[in-house]
Amino acid sequence: MRSWRLSRTSTKSRSKAPAHIPFKEMSNAPAQPDTFLSNLEWRRAVKHFGAGPVDVEPVIRAATQAPSSFGLQPYRIVAVKDKATRERLQPACYGQSQVTECDTLLVFCARTDVTGRSEEFLKASGAEAVRGMLEGFVGNLQDQVAWASRQAYIALGFALAAAAELKIASCPMEGFVPAAVAQELALDSTLHPVVLLALGEPAEEDGTWPRFRFPESDLVRRV
Amino acid sequence: MRSWRLSRTSTKSRSKAPAHIPFKEMSNAPAQPDTFLSNLEWRRAVKHFGAGPVDVEPVIRAATQAPSSFGLQPYRIVAVKDKATRERLQPACYGQSQVTECDTLLVFCARTDVTGRSEEFLKASGAEAVRGMLEGFVGNLQDQVAWASRQAYIALGFALAAAAELKIASCPMEGFVPAAVAQELALDSTLHPVVLLALGEPAEEDGTWPRFRFPESDLVRRV
Repeated sequence: MRSWRLSRTSTKSRSKAPAHIPFKEMSNAPAQPDTFLSNLEWRRAVKHFGAGPVDVEPVIRAATQAPSSFGLQPYRIVAVKDKATRERLQPACYGQSQVTECDTLLVFCARTDVTGRSEEFLKASGAEAVRGMLEGFVGNLQDQVAWASRQAYIALGFALAAAAELKIASCPMEGFVPAAVAQELALDSTLHPVVLLALGEPAEEDGTWPRFRFPESDLVRRV
Repeated sequence: MRSWRLSRTSTKSRSKAPAHIPFKEMSNAPAQPDTFLSNLEWRRAVKHFGAGPVDVEPVIRAATQAPSSFGLQPYRIVAVKDKATRERLQPACYGQSQVTECDTLLVFCARTDVTGRSEEFLKASGAEAVRGMLEGFVGNLQDQVAWASRQAYIALGFALAAAAELKIASCPMEGFVPAAVAQELALDSTLHPVVLLALGEPAEEDGTWPRFRFPESDLVRRV
């Protein structure tokens, strides 16, 4: 499994998949143009980016504002703009084109030392009064890394929404070898890469499939 | 651990925590008012809601537009507006006030049958050409429920960002007993509640702590 979404064949060299996949039409009508919702509906995971630079700072800023349980923000984001580094990362990402074509690759890393993170939180926030509750919470977590990973995915959601709002092309990716990415970025053992987000200029031939989302009736039940 | 964020004591009956926690000042200056970013910076997890109704439909819509690996959207959102149901859910949520005070409680459930979900995806999207890759991807997942849960957290991020954009008060909650929530909502065994999101009218006395986020230097490394 090499990418979050697959490439629609725009050139023969890019993929061996058939040129036209019979995706059904999206069942939901779009919202009004250029609204928050229409921008979310516009966005899709691209396989190819344009060559121009984009300002990814607001996207990074959005990610840092995401909520997390108890406010621990148990993650660190490595923003890789340096192209040589991205070229070295590409093999660890199964050679995916987005890694080198993007402007910046965000590497979301879960912090594995959640107990240590709690201490950092107490020190940075000054919220000593919550120490007892916080220690109880952390002590009761069944899987600290899994928990930290889920918090990182909220930040991923904020970054994706921000990119959509700014019409920056994006591609979240779970297809990579965490240990190899960690080694290339010289991450210490408390950081575990969980998901990547490539950001860049939209391209005309972006290699996306027709967009598909399940209808609301599948996704939502009302009580 | 009873709530995502804790209550600042607005009345003595609400909490035994001291009235003034010495949270340090937030280190980052806010963005321009009423921008996408400033709205993200405005939002915080509230403990109390106003009594008025809010239109949560755009928030639900945003959640349904979130991306997921391979587009499987392996989750279902139970939107509980019915107050009697929320009152019955409250004990399963450690009695948290947000459950009954909110307008609507979103219950994000991971789909535990990811293999079955893949078939639903292939049928709904018509993308039979990707069957081999998709089956390989799903077959290689180390923990399908953990994976589905992470995808649900992207949708949570979209819902939180949408609520912020619309100035709807929100409180994500991990403090609940999944089996009890599942029983109260009569969920079948393929749905596992992973996180809640209470949505409602902002209140003047919302019970929030001073807002804290780690500084960017803690959260981001640039390469």
